[in-house]
Amino acid sequence: MLSTELSEAEVSALMANKERLAKDLHHSCRWGYGVRWGDGSTDTGMQRLSLSHEDKQVRDWFIETTRVLKCNVTVDEMGNIFAVRPGRRKDVPPTFIGSHLDTQPTGGRYDGILGVLSGIETLKVIDEMGLETEGGIGVVNWTNEEGARFPISMISSGVWAECIPLSRAHNLKEVPTVASLPTASSAPETMKSALEKIKYLGTVPCSYKETPMAAHFELHIEQGPHLISAGQRVGVVTAVQAYRWFRLNIFGRDTHTGTTSFEHRADALYAFARMMVCAREVAAAKGCLSSVGIVEAKPGSVNTVPGLVSFTLDIRGPETEMVASVEAELRKEFDVIAAEEGKGIGKPCRVEWTLDFDSPAVKFHESCINCVRQSAEAVVAGAGVSEPKSLVRTIMSGAGHDSVFTSKRVPTSMIFVPCRDGLSHHPEEYCSADDCATGTSVILQAVIRYDRKRFVSA
Amino acid sequence: MLSTELSEAEVSALMANKERLAKDLHHSCRWGYGVRWGDGSTDTGMQRLSLSHEDKQVRDWFIETTRVLKCNVTVDEMGNIFAVRPGRRKDVPPTFIGSHLDTQPTGGRYDGILGVLSGIETLKVIDEMGLETEGGIGVVNWTNEEGARFPISMISSGVWAECIPLSRAHNLKEVPTVASLPTASSAPETMKSALEKIKYLGTVPCSYKETPMAAHFELHIEQGPHLISAGQRVGVVTAVQAYRWFRLNIFGRDTHTGTTSFEHRADALYAFARMMVCAREVAAAKGCLSSVGIVEAKPGSVNTVPGLVSFTLDIRGPETEMVASVEAELRKEFDVIAAEEGKGIGKPCRVEWTLDFDSPAVKFHESCINCVRQSAEAVVAGAGVSEPKSLVRTIMSGAGHDSVFTSKRVPTSMIFVPCRDGLSHHPEEYCSADDCATGTSVILQAVIRYDRKRFVSA
Repeated sequence: MLSTELSEAEVSALMANKERLAKDLHHSCRWGYGVRWGDGSTDTGMQRLSLSHEDKQVRDWFIETTRVLKCNVTVDEMGNIFAVRPGRRKDVPPTFIGSHLDTQPTGGRYDGILGVLSGIETLKVIDEMGLETEGGIGVVNWTNEEGARFPISMISSGVWAECIPLSRAHNLKEVPTVASLPTASSAPETMKSALEKIKYLGTVPCSYKETPMAAHFELHIEQGPHLISAGQRVGVVTAVQAYRWFRLNIFGRDTHTGTTSFEHRADALYAFARMMVCAREVAAAKGCLSSVGIVEAKPGSVNTVPGLVSFTLDIRGPETEMVASVEAELRKEFDVIAAEEGKGIGKPCRVEWTLDFDSPAVKFHESCINCVRQSAEAVVAGAGVSEPKSLVRTIMSGAGHDSVFTSKRVPTSMIFVPCRDGLSHHPEEYCSADDCATGTSVILQAVIRYDRKRFVSA
Repeated sequence: MLSTELSEAEVSALMANKERLAKDLHHSCRWGYGVRWGDGSTDTGMQRLSLSHEDKQVRDWFIETTRVLKCNVTVDEMGNIFAVRPGRRKDVPPTFIGSHLDTQPTGGRYDGILGVLSGIETLKVIDEMGLETEGGIGVVNWTNEEGARFPISMISSGVWAECIPLSRAHNLKEVPTVASLPTASSAPETMKSALEKIKYLGTVPCSYKETPMAAHFELHIEQGPHLISAGQRVGVVTAVQAYRWFRLNIFGRDTHTGTTSFEHRADALYAFARMMVCAREVAAAKGCLSSVGIVEAKPGSVNTVPGLVSFTLDIRGPETEMVASVEAELRKEFDVIAAEEGKGIGKPCRVEWTLDFDSPAVKFHESCINCVRQSAEAVVAGAGVSEPKSLVRTIMSGAGHDSVFTSKRVPTSMIFVPCRDGLSHHPEEYCSADDCATGTSVILQAVIRYDRKRFVSA
């Protein structure tokens, strides 16, 4: 049967297979499982850093699995893997479901993984129904979305969107994490050498021009508390908040802890502590977030006042301008704090900012959002509550996703499902099998609806 | 001539050779020189971590040099090197000059090094005069005084004083510093294996019973601003302030930086920042010092709120009770801070303290202090000022030294000389050749005076 020949009721009846999805998802987590938090066989986190040995293993599985589902698989220069089940029409770009299989060093089993697995389950439903789509349906695994090992998140969808130069990405060096610690003896690897090492440096140029998409849909856990605390089932994501990532260095002076009075110190770590406290105050007052994820103090000795501190600063807010306003105020405040620390010796601390990443606020594509909303309402219709639409919420994403970059080139939108306590980037991150299946049914219907719209309206 | 046959005026005329001392000191710094800060050939810091390859080289030089000066050299189980020039009497313990040749990862050319070199210069003066002492005169190089690589400072004088068990010291593992980064691939070394590797695991039991001393004198740069800002030349050190070193862990929760509101966070690093700010306030109010030298935040990712922070806390004060009082208040305050961070999710942060090192306030030995004071006044008498005694100051040490441990078993005292800006544990640490020589002349006279006192009064 052809997708455009289905009735509206038939589309609304398309549902993911909950058990099969859960089985596949946890099967894929056998590569790189992390910290155990419960007694169940799947009660562990994940530690699958991008381009690690475990990442290679799950990539091999992804290719094997999608090939069985009649997909053509290509790998580009960033190791992005595109698996496409061809449609009836050979001359049009496919509609994609995409996300990522890499995780944080102490991550969970759902962030990114659910998105890719929802794509595989979508292919399985289509395949077992013998459904033929008009355009192809693809699943993409984007490389290094997390930015945990190679410190630019969503870097490979960024290269695909031609927003980040390939050379910058290829030359990007890994950073130390709790799960990987490059050293002088084992020098930090670049993305390119890591891609080569696991044999995922593809030959297809990484660009939306070489691997075009009709649209990009992404299913993700919310990673926040809104859906779960309201008892809602699906978030229709219409936008992504703005954020900026900085690396800051504070230059003070190494001195002896036992013999140097506070007045005689230029203690870079004390200045850092004051800055971090200040950053939360300023961000909160402006309705934004600020966070420090990485801090390093040198030289690193119990009895030496640190003369050099470097740290990351992540500022987020609903609008690009709000983030800029927090940044502007912090630049002023940090200078004041630095100037105060060390003024007693006439050698005050000094602070330097480097912008590592700038992601303006994103609005998703109306047509994709509509497909998601219709599908969400259809999926929850049978939930047995009096007002099923109340289970669907319009929502903004706090986190960046590969969809931020795809949205710059092709119609894009996202679907959120609840996760326990809103917790993410943590081994105990959890999304129930029911919620995984609900979200997957929504994305399944959404890509079919999008495929139908393209060619019925044409 | 015999030391006890010298006149008082002859003792007061004993002086170090400034040029020879400077030459020897900088010669010894060829092994492990660090960051360059000026154009002069000796304008670098030092980076000679304990039991490193560079430390082995300078140890070899120390033994070679003292053997030429007719010393018997022994090495104990902690790698402490004792070089003794025998006196007339064979049945009495020698009077020692001691300090250390290891440095901080970004240290200078004087901390510890000047102390050992003042001992060598003392031997050279005695040797060229053909002076015979009653008891022997020894120079000791104590292992790992800094506690930078192996994180217990003064550990080897501590074992010698039988205050620290040998097994604890031998099993102590190195920690990462800017100059050494043990990893999974090159596992952290223990002190014992590091001693073996550089062939300084001696056979003599490390104990004041096996290597007895009549007294221990130590010359050191002040590492603080008092002498230099008052224009004074010599500090007669009568006491060492108390200090305690702790390692603290803060347990919070890893979460996503973009999607977790401040209310929903248990941000261990934010709690740390507040604690560090608080610690300075509390310590300052009580006339004490508090410092954080090492901090580590995990998992270490730009977009993950750190769920685990560990850090060192160094509290110092003039009296043991004052340090205890700061500790008691911080234990309360830190609990309050931890309880506030994460209370919104009912999972507040938690803080754990471990005491790594406890050094009560020390009072030095009256008889040794008197030898130092007489010698200091004699050495500055010719300085050409109207009140030469005003160049000598009675002073308390802010830092710990090997003399803290020797003072528990044998009469001990110390001598301070000024250093530029009071700066120490920094590549630009500097003590002029004049000040080095003044201090060395003081220690030279002090050991001769002590030797005479022992046998004239007997």
